Amino acid sequence: MSPINLAIVGVGKIVRDQHLPAVAKNADYRLIAAASRHGTVDGIDNFKSIDEMLAAVPAIEAVSLCMPPQYRYEAAEKALSAGKHVFLEKPPGATLSEVADLEALAAARGVSLFASWHSRYAPAVEAAKSFLAGTTIRSMRVIWKEDVRHWHPNQEWIWQAGGLGVFDPGINALSIVTHILPRPVFITAATLEFPENRDAPIAATMTFSDAKGLDLAAEFDWRQTGKQSWDIVAETDAGTMVLSEGGAKLSIDGKLVHEEPEQEYPMLYRRFAEIVKAGKSDVDLAPLRHVADAFMLGRRKFVEAFHD
Amino acid sequence: MSPINLAIVGVGKIVRDQHLPAVAKNADYRLIAAASRHGTVDGIDNFKSIDEMLAAVPAIEAVSLCMPPQYRYEAAEKALSAGKHVFLEKPPGATLSEVADLEALAAARGVSLFASWHSRYAPAVEAAKSFLAGTTIRSMRVIWKEDVRHWHPNQEWIWQAGGLGVFDPGINALSIVTHILPRPVFITAATLEFPENRDAPIAATMTFSDAKGLDLAAEFDWRQTGKQSWDIVAETDAGTMVLSEGGAKLSIDGKLVHEEPEQEYPMLYRRFAEIVKAGKSDVDLAPLRHVADAFMLGRRKFVEAFHD
Repeated sequence: MSPINLAIVGVGKIVRDQHLPAVAKNADYRLIAAASRHGTVDGIDNFKSIDEMLAAVPAIEAVSLCMPPQYRYEAAEKALSAGKHVFLEKPPGATLSEVADLEALAAARGVSLFASWHSRYAPAVEAAKSFLAGTTIRSMRVIWKEDVRHWHPNQEWIWQAGGLGVFDPGINALSIVTHILPRPVFITAATLEFPENRDAPIAATMTFSDAKGLDLAAEFDWRQTGKQSWDIVAETDAGTMVLSEGGAKLSIDGKLVHEEPEQEYPMLYRRFAEIVKAGKSDVDLAPLRHVADAFMLGRRKFVEAFHD
Repeated sequence: MSPINLAIVGVGKIVRDQHLPAVAKNADYRLIAAASRHGTVDGIDNFKSIDEMLAAVPAIEAVSLCMPPQYRYEAAEKALSAGKHVFLEKPPGATLSEVADLEALAAARGVSLFASWHSRYAPAVEAAKSFLAGTTIRSMRVIWKEDVRHWHPNQEWIWQAGGLGVFDPGINALSIVTHILPRPVFITAATLEFPENRDAPIAATMTFSDAKGLDLAAEFDWRQTGKQSWDIVAETDAGTMVLSEGGAKLSIDGKLVHEEPEQEYPMLYRRFAEIVKAGKSDVDLAPLRHVADAFMLGRRKFVEAFHD
């Protein structure tokens, strides 16, 4: 099979850091164009908009959409309508309803839609899932605390309505949790803390349960300086499981049992090629649904203004 | 077929006003028990909790769950697990994820789950759907403005997190809109107004679109005194359509074309008996998904405190 002619839309930090290196190393793709209001990619044709790009380069077979979620639907609708396969960065959209609409459109056009969740491909996630499948879980705690000034410096879109705030990293935790747990969960209570000058939360706490009464709590906080935490801790009848560093390391009762080099984006692009070849889509909305549920069910609390 | 042995849980205003009269007139049901913390139903066995009721009256085949949405999952999970069919008042739950979980449980148990949307059965809704199917819609405006002090006096749960506030009536509008429009829609922007002393919004404005760029806006407000509005107005190439009084009347270019007596709950119970007999479920989450999307995407604004 010849390589998939790929285009990238929205050339920002995540594209430079992750998408371009992953695509460059994968023989299944040939990157032939990019569209972005500000960024460009060296050595290929660059355009200011997806419309110009799709009109000028009919050879494009698939597009990766990496602009902020508030602008993703329109581009995805154009690409799918033009018969292109679409890779959506996370979160897949600004609303659940628009992504459901895109899924139906992809099915109608006979092309593949991929709602990517990179953290599900973190090195130790599958090992954690296998461990939990054989145990009784007594409790689970999700602690996702990072310094927004370090990880999202001056990213205005993330603080706007629809930008999700601390749920932008938090949805990574939710994508892992929903993948490794044996049963679906749902939020039972939440508190969202909004800086008084921002439209998106800087911190959130949530409790979840499932049909068996699982004890699950999550804490997301963007005000963490010093040590950063992206940890999932489960107390089980087979010991204490710690999935740490965003899914990179797994230890049981303090003993490191799984650690491999990080390969998230290379694996995402492998998965995308797989579904394109198989002629199917991969759209799991559970992580975004939990975020929407948290906003709908959650209590709002106002906290100190945040300035970058 | 012998009547379905029915029980009702959560005996409040909506049960007395709507459920009991509808069930009494429908030969498909025999009401045999009720459970409620405060209310009782004359002439049948009454219990304080669903657990007591299910244990004491094994003949129950179906239950209608009419308690506030924050408490609905637990009761539904118990009823479905006990092999009973379940009728959920609107909204079907406090989160999308818990209702998705109930849907899977009903399927696994081979019983029927009904997420009811009474406004979809308002007299003129089907006529509006038929009219719109043959037109090009230029714009649609949804105006749902009522006096909360009149319609929800001292209903504390409605103001709590998860009680949905003005989206409790507003979801009725969304249930109609999602039923009569030819294509799925999604929210593109929203503003939610929270009284400074409450955890749920008293007003909301939303804009929606669809794959064809539909111009749709909705306005929900609980501060309306004087004339109450539950109207959907569409400008189309076949004239101006006004679906008014919550779906009761339809007029085209000012001419009343459809008006019949209101039969919402009788029709809901007819539909529930139908799905029970057919061995299937009827769970459309689109109205609740739009509410969750509005909370997730919406800008929050604080307004004057509200006191009953």
